[in-house]
Amino acid sequence: MNNFEYYNPTKVIFGKDTYDQIPSKIKESTAGKRVMITYGGGSIKKNGVYDAVMSALKDYEVVEFSGIEANPEYDTLMKAVEQIKENPVDFVLAIGGGSVIDGTKFIVSAAKYDGNPWDVLTQKKGCKFEYALPFGTVLTLPATGSEMNSGAVISNSRLKEKRTMGGPQGFPKFSFLDPTVVKTLPKKQIANGIVDAYMHTLEQYMTYPSNNLLQERIAEGILATLIEIGPKVLEDPADYKAASNLMWCATMALNGTLRAGVAYDWTTHMIGHELTALHGIDHARTLAIIAPNLYKVKFENKKEKLIQYGQRIFGLEGSCGEEAIHRTKTFFESLGIKTNLSDYTDDYKSTPKIIRERFEERGWEAMGERNDLTPIEAEKIVEMSF
Amino acid sequence: MNNFEYYNPTKVIFGKDTYDQIPSKIKESTAGKRVMITYGGGSIKKNGVYDAVMSALKDYEVVEFSGIEANPEYDTLMKAVEQIKENPVDFVLAIGGGSVIDGTKFIVSAAKYDGNPWDVLTQKKGCKFEYALPFGTVLTLPATGSEMNSGAVISNSRLKEKRTMGGPQGFPKFSFLDPTVVKTLPKKQIANGIVDAYMHTLEQYMTYPSNNLLQERIAEGILATLIEIGPKVLEDPADYKAASNLMWCATMALNGTLRAGVAYDWTTHMIGHELTALHGIDHARTLAIIAPNLYKVKFENKKEKLIQYGQRIFGLEGSCGEEAIHRTKTFFESLGIKTNLSDYTDDYKSTPKIIRERFEERGWEAMGERNDLTPIEAEKIVEMSF
Repeated sequence: MNNFEYYNPTKVIFGKDTYDQIPSKIKESTAGKRVMITYGGGSIKKNGVYDAVMSALKDYEVVEFSGIEANPEYDTLMKAVEQIKENPVDFVLAIGGGSVIDGTKFIVSAAKYDGNPWDVLTQKKGCKFEYALPFGTVLTLPATGSEMNSGAVISNSRLKEKRTMGGPQGFPKFSFLDPTVVKTLPKKQIANGIVDAYMHTLEQYMTYPSNNLLQERIAEGILATLIEIGPKVLEDPADYKAASNLMWCATMALNGTLRAGVAYDWTTHMIGHELTALHGIDHARTLAIIAPNLYKVKFENKKEKLIQYGQRIFGLEGSCGEEAIHRTKTFFESLGIKTNLSDYTDDYKSTPKIIRERFEERGWEAMGERNDLTPIEAEKIVEMSF
Repeated sequence: MNNFEYYNPTKVIFGKDTYDQIPSKIKESTAGKRVMITYGGGSIKKNGVYDAVMSALKDYEVVEFSGIEANPEYDTLMKAVEQIKENPVDFVLAIGGGSVIDGTKFIVSAAKYDGNPWDVLTQKKGCKFEYALPFGTVLTLPATGSEMNSGAVISNSRLKEKRTMGGPQGFPKFSFLDPTVVKTLPKKQIANGIVDAYMHTLEQYMTYPSNNLLQERIAEGILATLIEIGPKVLEDPADYKAASNLMWCATMALNGTLRAGVAYDWTTHMIGHELTALHGIDHARTLAIIAPNLYKVKFENKKEKLIQYGQRIFGLEGSCGEEAIHRTKTFFESLGIKTNLSDYTDDYKSTPKIIRERFEERGWEAMGERNDLTPIEAEKIVEMSF
């Protein structure tokens, strides 16, 4: 087992009818009464979450920042940062899915940072977020796991870039996870969420045998659960058992548990982020496009784990690595997620080369769990994804 | 899925050659330089852990408190509390297994408590530990999970009592888990640790189907891993893969993960604590004695889960509940753990009645996940365990 450090101080409040506890959880961080709520395009006003949260916050002075878009934009978020710098708040409460929560992590960190926040995102030497305003989340979309980790992905569409940030200041103080929100979601978003959780798990599993037998079994537990409940929650999003299992799997898939002591890859995400930046394809769908082809290109690296996965998850026998890749693709397709790049855009012919060049420009010579996936191989993976 | 709250802020540093990070982790809690180390009978001086930790603490003023016994004694621990009250320290570092860590949780809490700490342990109305000195742990024995939770069990042999305590102040700030200590342990302690972790898992699993499909699979992952590596680590405690999996399973079995959203029982522990208090039997062994009989007495309650367990863990088929109980007993016996009370003491004839009376005196009319296990049934379970 590899050495590891595990730390996750976010408090999760999971279940129905819990929002009345929001004030007591805020009080654990601050006695202050001025709260900024952040949200996206306004779906929370239609599904009742906004009203429920505002009712819980009736003793607070609430300021609002709305309009955080999918793939949250640096320029948008900087407006919230300026608003807070001009008129400070004591706490920020993100109400939304991964984009709103990621955006809020940037807002609370940048609001406490004196330099140019873009320098942190580009990892300019010596530039680091160290402090943040305390913040919590009310999750409305199970998918990214952002509600229980410290990472965030921020887009800059002017530069066609997606950048990641992290650090201990990025952990929410608390997150409310109420699975009844699932029934208010478009099926497309539910399907994306299932694939996102599945792929977060595979990125931390489909490497080489880790010697951390338990972590492999936990990863397999998430995969098996998603396969079991995925079709059910799509068929009936009001099925509480299915919805609550989806929500908890999505959180557990990226809260630090799975990576303890194992080798992880994340190249599917790195390529996927470029596809979103170039073509605006939903994050989860980029992962479904790339992963099967990446596993084919790096088959020898991942063969042993692909076989374990095929046997334990799909009940296959023998040397079933290729069939396991096929089953993965089939599972995504069964959720209504198309897995070829050409299904999403006609304008993709130059994409493989652009992605190779971007990786080369950044000096990413070797990716993947064995540090041997080259930009040329990334180009090939994208070529295969048409 | 049941509503739940999950919170665990303990930082785990897992692996080999990590103790040089102890000072940097202490600094995250205090700039103070006066540290009390707590330990047991001195095995840490033989296995090298004492020297390694003292070397890491070379820039600190270290005071020592040793002699914390298995089933840590209230009277012993109060000496450490008095020592701290007379001459305060900035941080306490527990070096040991569950007993030393549990005892240290009491010490750091009682040192910050103005009333009579015994009142807290007896749950006298209005008496509660709210604050504690910051403390960390260096784990030397994988078993109880105390290194990553906030609970503790404290004994008072004058009163033949074991009492539990908990609360957020009880979380260690950090815990160092180095699996190389396993090779220094007596095999009896290793076997106890395996059973302890296994039974912590079963207490949070062997109830009724929870609708939390993932948590059930995580529990099954711990059980399967312990069955796989238990015999290996007993045969060769220097097998790092086996030892590290045992250590991590023991932590994961009682760090709050398994109980998220599920029904739990803990009656085996409640009866087991009495057996330890009355006859001095090792904690883990009391669990191995009681659990199979408890599952027989409450068979109808647990039948559905016993079948799932038998099928998924032992590969049995059909209605395999009774066989699953038998296999559990056989697994414990295969580790050298005897499972009959009469294997441990001749003086047990009055035990069932005493335990029933103790439960009745405390007003524990109904225990177990369905609140229907009566003191009379507890008496019967103990009778069956001869």
